[in-house]
Amino acid sequence: MLTKCIENVRKKVPLVHNITNYVTVNDVANVLLACGGSPIMADDLNEVEEITSICGGLNINIGTLNINTTRSMFLAGKKANELGHKVLLDPVGAGASNLRTETAVKLINEIKVDVIRGNISEIKTLALGSGSTKGVDADVADAVTEETLDNTIAFVKAFAKKTGSIIAITGAIDLVADSDKCYVIRNGRPDMGKITGTGCQLSGMMTAFLVANPDHVLEAAAAAVCTMGLAGEIGWSNMQPGEGNSTYRNRIIDAIYHMDGAVLEKGAKYEVR
Amino acid sequence: MLTKCIENVRKKVPLVHNITNYVTVNDVANVLLACGGSPIMADDLNEVEEITSICGGLNINIGTLNINTTRSMFLAGKKANELGHKVLLDPVGAGASNLRTETAVKLINEIKVDVIRGNISEIKTLALGSGSTKGVDADVADAVTEETLDNTIAFVKAFAKKTGSIIAITGAIDLVADSDKCYVIRNGRPDMGKITGTGCQLSGMMTAFLVANPDHVLEAAAAAVCTMGLAGEIGWSNMQPGEGNSTYRNRIIDAIYHMDGAVLEKGAKYEVR
Amino acid sequence: MLTKCIENVRKKVPLVHNITNYVTVNDVANVLLACGGSPIMADDLNEVEEITSICGGLNINIGTLNINTTRSMFLAGKKANELGHKVLLDPVGAGASNLRTETAVKLINEIKVDVIRGNISEIKTLALGSGSTKGVDADVADAVTEETLDNTIAFVKAFAKKTGSIIAITGAIDLVADSDKCYVIRNGRPDMGKITGTGCQLSGMMTAFLVANPDHVLEAAAAAVCTMGLAGEIGWSNMQPGEGNSTYRNRIIDAIYHMDGAVLEKGAKYEVR
Repeated sequence: MLTKCIENVRKKVPLVHNITNYVTVNDVANVLLACGGSPIMADDLNEVEEITSICGGLNINIGTLNINTTRSMFLAGKKANELGHKVLLDPVGAGASNLRTETAVKLINEIKVDVIRGNISEIKTLALGSGSTKGVDADVADAVTEETLDNTIAFVKAFAKKTGSIIAITGAIDLVADSDKCYVIRNGRPDMGKITGTGCQLSGMMTAFLVANPDHVLEAAAAAVCTMGLAGEIGWSNMQPGEGNSTYRNRIIDAIYHMDGAVLEKGAKYEVR
Repeated sequence: MLTKCIENVRKKVPLVHNITNYVTVNDVANVLLACGGSPIMADDLNEVEEITSICGGLNINIGTLNINTTRSMFLAGKKANELGHKVLLDPVGAGASNLRTETAVKLINEIKVDVIRGNISEIKTLALGSGSTKGVDADVADAVTEETLDNTIAFVKAFAKKTGSIIAITGAIDLVADSDKCYVIRNGRPDMGKITGTGCQLSGMMTAFLVANPDHVLEAAAAAVCTMGLAGEIGWSNMQPGEGNSTYRNRIIDAIYHMDGAVLEKGAKYEVR
Repeated sequence: MLTKCIENVRKKVPLVHNITNYVTVNDVANVLLACGGSPIMADDLNEVEEITSICGGLNINIGTLNINTTRSMFLAGKKANELGHKVLLDPVGAGASNLRTETAVKLINEIKVDVIRGNISEIKTLALGSGSTKGVDADVADAVTEETLDNTIAFVKAFAKKTGSIIAITGAIDLVADSDKCYVIRNGRPDMGKITGTGCQLSGMMTAFLVANPDHVLEAAAAAVCTMGLAGEIGWSNMQPGEGNSTYRNRIIDAIYHMDGAVLEKGAKYEVR
């Protein structure tokens, strides 16, 4: 199934509309190209509906939200819903400010979001109205561990049920769940947390996977998470002496560029719960 | 001639004012530094006229246009015209939304633009009011091929005549033309399309070439296209196993950093028609 | 002392709020992660006070200032002052436009700024109301050389006294001074000037150093300058044939990622005057 998911991206070259932050936007574009998709970034009120109309999916990321682009997110989201396009929300920093929390909650309430992808603290903030976010990173206190895994899976499924969205939580252990089924994924490396925007990159790429696999969105979301984590492992194995987080960023995107179904199928480490 | 064009950039260190998109802006700045120019980015209404005044050229790129920076483009463009500075327009995504198409057309009508540089779909949109842009990439249906070359050269010369601008179209075959003369350039690699912003980078660099070679602007524009394409070839030859589009981006800019007149003269593949 | 300064950053993982330009923002985030800090970027009026409250320090950079984010700089700066947080100002391009000069002066007047970090032309503009800035780069005429060193040290100490801020000037010779004491630092390489944003990166990193070393801010600022310069030397020594400014950017950040107290102590080249 994973094989099929990534191969469909390369075959269909899905065009993804991104309303995203200016910190990691270049990497998001390059990851979308690396996985076989095609990115377009547009956030002006006067074009977002039209731009989203020519795309297959919409990736909304609130990493550097501001009053203008927030309005564009709602406009584009509603148009995407109208057209039956896939919509992903990355609630970057939810919990770090009321503006972020409220914007994310309002987006979920007013727009049909296919996937919400964030770290555990962001998702807890949205689900429980609390969560101890430390800026844009998850708080250690919230971390998904083998000990908390059963409870977290139950929590994630419940939140998926409540929202009607697939919930994708990334961290040391990644969880991708709908109300019924949860992929528990153990790819990736802790060093990925030392690169800005691996989460944003994953959100962009995941949107392409959703668009290319409209009938298997849970699997597509899980495949995107496995692809990112596995690329983190492959990229790390290509590191040369003296290289650090900046080169690692390139090596991960490079690994996605070369990823195919066979490599993904072989390297993906997941179970379904 | 090409030798002279790039050497003039390194000798004169032209300061280029960029009003550009936030997706590829960092690469544009690094390419300008790599080729010997000096970049400044500024888009606020209250400073663009002053900033453009201290520069030699203005690079306008509508890749993530919005209502505020669009007004700045007109202000800066008019000031640059007043001062006799070189102006380049990169109509990113013209055809993908009315806002982009209309903004690009209005810029061409109200500002004297020395060069319009885009992909074939963007240029067709501006010239014919049509063109089948796929987001920010050219549509395959529009591609310049050996079969369509003669007709496309005639089209480009006619559009150059109509606008009074040099037209630079980049793709598998690149065309740089005024009303009379067309450089047909066959440098570059298809893999460059898998990197976000090689077009934006070229536009920034080309502006520096125009500023440094005010009396030979057609040759300067062609030299910039050859430099970018040849850097794509050299960068590719430096790729190591496992490297992909993200590292390729760096290797292309690195190749520009080391490019000199002799390398360019030897590697440039063009004919004049 | 330098050893302690960098080790404190890695131990305390200071959260730094950045209101910065969109050209170099990604590199600023990655450098902050490389040195052991944690970045958050936020510039909307409706969240900057809240975001800065959860951070330890605020890095204000006017590289692409605009009317909205300028107001956010004042709001965040005042809140940071209220909470006793460290504040750094990077007056990018002061002297290149009245808007930049006036904004920087107003920020210094209305906000208690712990460190002002810029190139010599920017600092001269702020101190003397003049200075021959060439865009965002220092003018050669202003350069700090062995001949002008004594006078420049006196000038910098006087400006530090007048403003009550530490003044950090980077260039061929770096100076970090309060009213009484000046670190003269000779790390770094001229090639660093061919990368966009090494100054912005240093400002972000320096803010983390200030936050992690609240009782030794002058030493912390000097340690950050030594770290950046030394990383420039180490990164350069790791360059492979054909690599240029784009890869060099990565190699510098990579070197910071691996920097520890022992390496810094050994490689730092400074005297106190």
